[in-house]
Amino acid sequence: MPNMPGPVKESNVDVLIIGAGPAGLMAANWFARFSKQGLTCRIIDKRSDKIFTGQADGLQCRTLEVFETFGFADRVWKESNHMLEICFWNPDENGVINRTGRIPDTIPGISHYQQVVLHQGRIERFFLDAMSHHGNIHVERSILPESLTISPSSSSTDSDYPVKLQVRHLSLQESTPSQFGSNVASGLFRQVATEGDVSDAPSAERTGDSEIINAKYVIGCDGAHSWTRAQIGAQMHGEQTDYIWGVLDGVPITDFPDIRMRCAIHSEGSGSVMVIPRERGVVRLYIQLAELDVEVDGQKKRVDRSKITADMILKAAQKIVRPYTLEMEDIEWFTAYQIGQRVTDRFTNVDATAAQGEQHPRVFIAGDACHTHSPKAGQGMNTSMMDTYNLAWKIAHAVLGYSTPSILSTYESERRLIARDLIAFDHKFSRLFSGKPAKNGDDMGISLEEFKKVFEKGNLFASGTAVDYGPSAIVAKDGKAVPQYAEPEDTDDPSAAGVRTVSRTGLSTKILPGQRVPSTKVLNHSDARPWHLNELLKSTGKWRIVPFLGDPRSASQISRIQALATWLDSENSPWRRYTPPALPVDALFDTLSIHSAPRAEVEWFSFPPALRRTYNSLYVDDASYHEGHGHAYDFYGIDREKGCLVVLRPDGYVAFVGELEDTDRVEEFFEGFMRVPQGCPRGLGELRRELGAGMEVKERVLVDVQTDKIGQVVQSVEELAV
Amino acid sequence: MPNMPGPVKESNVDVLIIGAGPAGLMAANWFARFSKQGLTCRIIDKRSDKIFTGQADGLQCRTLEVFETFGFADRVWKESNHMLEICFWNPDENGVINRTGRIPDTIPGISHYQQVVLHQGRIERFFLDAMSHHGNIHVERSILPESLTISPSSSSTDSDYPVKLQVRHLSLQESTPSQFGSNVASGLFRQVATEGDVSDAPSAERTGDSEIINAKYVIGCDGAHSWTRAQIGAQMHGEQTDYIWGVLDGVPITDFPDIRMRCAIHSEGSGSVMVIPRERGVVRLYIQLAELDVEVDGQKKRVDRSKITADMILKAAQKIVRPYTLEMEDIEWFTAYQIGQRVTDRFTNVDATAAQGEQHPRVFIAGDACHTHSPKAGQGMNTSMMDTYNLAWKIAHAVLGYSTPSILSTYESERRLIARDLIAFDHKFSRLFSGKPAKNGDDMGISLEEFKKVFEKGNLFASGTAVDYGPSAIVAKDGKAVPQYAEPEDTDDPSAAGVRTVSRTGLSTKILPGQRVPSTKVLNHSDARPWHLNELLKSTGKWRIVPFLGDPRSASQISRIQALATWLDSENSPWRRYTPPALPVDALFDTLSIHSAPRAEVEWFSFPPALRRTYNSLYVDDASYHEGHGHAYDFYGIDREKGCLVVLRPDGYVAFVGELEDTDRVEEFFEGFMRVPQGCPRGLGELRRELGAGMEVKERVLVDVQTDKIGQVVQSVEELAV
Repeated sequence: MPNMPGPVKESNVDVLIIGAGPAGLMAANWFARFSKQGLTCRIIDKRSDKIFTGQADGLQCRTLEVFETFGFADRVWKESNHMLEICFWNPDENGVINRTGRIPDTIPGISHYQQVVLHQGRIERFFLDAMSHHGNIHVERSILPESLTISPSSSSTDSDYPVKLQVRHLSLQESTPSQFGSNVASGLFRQVATEGDVSDAPSAERTGDSEIINAKYVIGCDGAHSWTRAQIGAQMHGEQTDYIWGVLDGVPITDFPDIRMRCAIHSEGSGSVMVIPRERGVVRLYIQLAELDVEVDGQKKRVDRSKITADMILKAAQKIVRPYTLEMEDIEWFTAYQIGQRVTDRFTNVDATAAQGEQHPRVFIAGDACHTHSPKAGQGMNTSMMDTYNLAWKIAHAVLGYSTPSILSTYESERRLIARDLIAFDHKFSRLFSGKPAKNGDDMGISLEEFKKVFEKGNLFASGTAVDYGPSAIVAKDGKAVPQYAEPEDTDDPSAAGVRTVSRTGLSTKILPGQRVPSTKVLNHSDARPWHLNELLKSTGKWRIVPFLGDPRSASQISRIQALATWLDSENSPWRRYTPPALPVDALFDTLSIHSAPRAEVEWFSFPPALRRTYNSLYVDDASYHEGHGHAYDFYGIDREKGCLVVLRPDGYVAFVGELEDTDRVEEFFEGFMRVPQGCPRGLGELRRELGAGMEVKERVLVDVQTDKIGQVVQSVEELAV
Repeated sequence: MPNMPGPVKESNVDVLIIGAGPAGLMAANWFARFSKQGLTCRIIDKRSDKIFTGQADGLQCRTLEVFETFGFADRVWKESNHMLEICFWNPDENGVINRTGRIPDTIPGISHYQQVVLHQGRIERFFLDAMSHHGNIHVERSILPESLTISPSSSSTDSDYPVKLQVRHLSLQESTPSQFGSNVASGLFRQVATEGDVSDAPSAERTGDSEIINAKYVIGCDGAHSWTRAQIGAQMHGEQTDYIWGVLDGVPITDFPDIRMRCAIHSEGSGSVMVIPRERGVVRLYIQLAELDVEVDGQKKRVDRSKITADMILKAAQKIVRPYTLEMEDIEWFTAYQIGQRVTDRFTNVDATAAQGEQHPRVFIAGDACHTHSPKAGQGMNTSMMDTYNLAWKIAHAVLGYSTPSILSTYESERRLIARDLIAFDHKFSRLFSGKPAKNGDDMGISLEEFKKVFEKGNLFASGTAVDYGPSAIVAKDGKAVPQYAEPEDTDDPSAAGVRTVSRTGLSTKILPGQRVPSTKVLNHSDARPWHLNELLKSTGKWRIVPFLGDPRSASQISRIQALATWLDSENSPWRRYTPPALPVDALFDTLSIHSAPRAEVEWFSFPPALRRTYNSLYVDDASYHEGHGHAYDFYGIDREKGCLVVLRPDGYVAFVGELEDTDRVEEFFEGFMRVPQGCPRGLGELRRELGAGMEVKERVLVDVQTDKIGQVVQSVEELAV
């Protein structure tokens, strides 16, 4: 029985997340990192417990790299099944399937991780554990959002809470997954908890209570049927295919030899199966239910998707894998779906047709709320988590006043292109997979070669390591900044309306603005321990200044290093300039330096203090005693003598690459979007804009651009402004 | 207030462990693996909670290898500080210390792990977690043992509980660590819990209650002042040195450049310091307090060890590291100790002078109860855990009736020699460390060369990987089996009183009877995943038959492999012969096969079913896609064509090495100590003894040894015995 409604509770929170699936939990996990700096966050979900079985399971390299920055990639690595090889099975001239090729599942060399498979419930568990370890955020379950309004007067200030959300606390009966009409409802949904896992269900109910939550920002991670998306009036665009696919999770008994490999099996006339070997001996089969026709009681019939049973799916699979036998001992989960490929027209509440200017986004959608597609390439959960990995730190920096809210527009510009690429990829991938195989001399079908080529190319995209964000205020690279509200070709991204800094090119072949940094091993100079660089790039919420110091054994390089250190210690360095006085000096910025001299030839204390603030600040590209040599300078294509200066965003993507002397560019870069706390001097870029067309700041010296006459040496920006 | 004593509770248990330090927890963790087979175990400790700070911290390679077999080496690896390099600091001609050399801390190549440092409390946590994951054993704290008696009539049967122990439940006040007069009492003992750690203190008190526990076996892991040792009348023998050492744990502020390295610093006249960098920025300093003289208020005084303060120890350290400065910001723990080097004369209740025969050990002691020495080489905790790692599975197999209790005597024969070696090592190591450094032309002191040499040799011993158990019933190698009760030279170990099987030599250069198997990578044939072999040798409590199958592409090798498989499926294989009918077929024995053909050239289904019972049974020595090539056959020095047959004990030590055809030796080996359940046929060895001198079983054929006349073909032993 619901309780009698009491007075409606009302409260404020910086960020409210709707939906505690992987996308929502990734966001909450990010925000937990900021909770010690005062950020508040709540995450609600209408379901009564987390997922234990079924649903998404593929984890791509980049996702694992990001998990590593949050400290739990090792848990995934240990529990998951590692998929190493893809085997292709196709009909021979007699129509009998045989193995026609093998390729590595993950392209060797693209990451220090490889694709693995682990069910979504365990991923959610790792997020929940990380959240409780780092902050005080926990998932509030059995809560349904009922209305959302955005106060129109809100956009100019970050100190109020313009988004009003009314929610209702559900009974356990209302909030069990089968109530929600998702795919789960059509399947056999059993909560099979892994050993050691625990329920996250709430201990007490407040059934029927309504509550009003006022938030600065709201993120809707509420899935393909997103309620949040409907509230902001965004629309899904795309198409639905005719293909129906069945999915079975179970322990197979079979004489098919590659059942523990990822397999693409194309039968001559019975459709195709994809085999995904999983943890605990389970295998997932994606089975094409040929063109909506399923054999029932010996007759071909066009079936209603909701009527499809596990047995029907298994029978279809058995037909495809003939002459091999296939039984499923223990079907854990099954479902049937039709492939739909859609992207939403907007990722936020900001409408392209509305008046622009002061307005900035307050409500965001992410994950399945933004894009849906076929599950076979293992992209959905990964792309969803990467959406909020991109978004949450930006919201945190805006809420905490570190940045202007202008950076928020880069969420849509960066992630919407990814979503489009994903749909394009999926379109091609699904078509190939659902199509018939070519027979000798039949060029209507899909040839093995074409299939393999798309698969290999697809693997690079699918790994998530190829993401390359466009130029913007927070990616200092050449080209037109991608806009938020319109087609890519139209106008500059509004986040980059001011002066936009550009990186130098040619200083590294692998550390490129807009991309993630691939990992190789470096040694901690103080204790000789080898680390994968990515292990050191923890998601702390800080910007990271990463000087590749070159070889500190030459006198000229020593003076370059010294100059860099002097700048880092000066009031012009972003670190001094933007960190609010109340916070620790390294709250917003950190450094990580890597030099190229042999470790035993240079003393730790010979480096300037600014580059060795802690024993975890200074690294060296040298051989380890037990784990080989990372050859970092060669790997990254960086000059061993001269090095270069890299700036990484809080999400690890490269923001800037320049020479060690390009400190003015770095200053200018941060002036594009950082907020100067009270009492700090103004920056060079700000000054440059004031100076007007006739003068320019070059290497800290005022120069008349017409006459090239050198003016005043800029000792301190403050001084010059007087 | 203690409760009024009620009626004394009395109960039975298979094994009782006294003391929940690392040695006791290792035993409990082992027994937890057997709890599903019906073994019962209790572990009691007089302290009220587990350790959080201070105490032992070095973890050697072999210990980490063993942790890996229990599934938590990764937790240690992640949290610990890794010590990679040892730096030697010595006085120059002016008496000023300078760095005179560097060596790797762990000899490269001896293990896939290296020495790390993590405080004992975390190790205890990992054991507790593993215990609760695998069985129903938990530590019962605040319980003091008060009396122990062994019923003399007990030795002939395993079905009764001959050891009677009376214990008392303590109040929390009685059971806090400072009450027990250990080193801890002299130090500043603060319980600094690591983030995420939790107390293991009991939730309710049963103060004052006495309880009687009847056990089949008791293990005393109750430390250097062992109560259990006193009950069985064992004596510690050895010596106490004059050297007093202080230990400080804290965060140093220093300009000494190698503070994050393990350092051996010898000053000219102020003694020596050993630096052990630890986790969380903490450094441990072992400081020689020169010959009992400590400077107090400017005067040299001979001090009482219990009066030594943290400040006195720090001052001594400051003097040694001059001209470098050294302050300790946050001293977490300190103590002072005198080096004592002692081994107990017996490891069990069985007295060498008593009548032998039926008597077999019922009470064992392990760890510090058996051996004490200096802590600087990081041996104590490691050797202690390895003691019970050696012992517990043997007790479990005896209790569960898998083996005769004869194998129990191998505990003392195997571990007592290790303890003696340890003391000899420590004697040399400590003397070197406490001695004065040699100056030029002064051959009274210890030369740098000598120091470095001993250090390097010591590192191999210290790693734990060099352990080589002698011949016995459970180590099939040539030579005299080492006895339990007497000097090694005297008589054969009683466990090997019957026929003793011997391995063939020369089949592998690295897999040697009595030693652990060093690890390299192999691929799972079914899914191409690379594994370190040691990851696959999980401590399940089972014997493991490990056929290196050679190259299955040749017809002759195929027939050898087939013959092996036929034997495995036959009633003569240990697997069929000794597994009680009520248990799963793989409850006592498992197989793990490794072949040498290229993976893609041989089908998984082409191997006989006995060698591929699960997808985790068959491995291949081939290149992986992403993690290189383990070159296992080359690494182990095994013929790639012909392979060999290896048997591993439940603790991973090599029991037997032979040809693939040496199945009769394997049968004979197990007949030496395994118990045949009701209804199983007798073995060849048993038969051979009955046949007497004139006949011998050769390759399953009865041969008259005088005439060499071939007799009856032995189809089944049972048949022959008729």
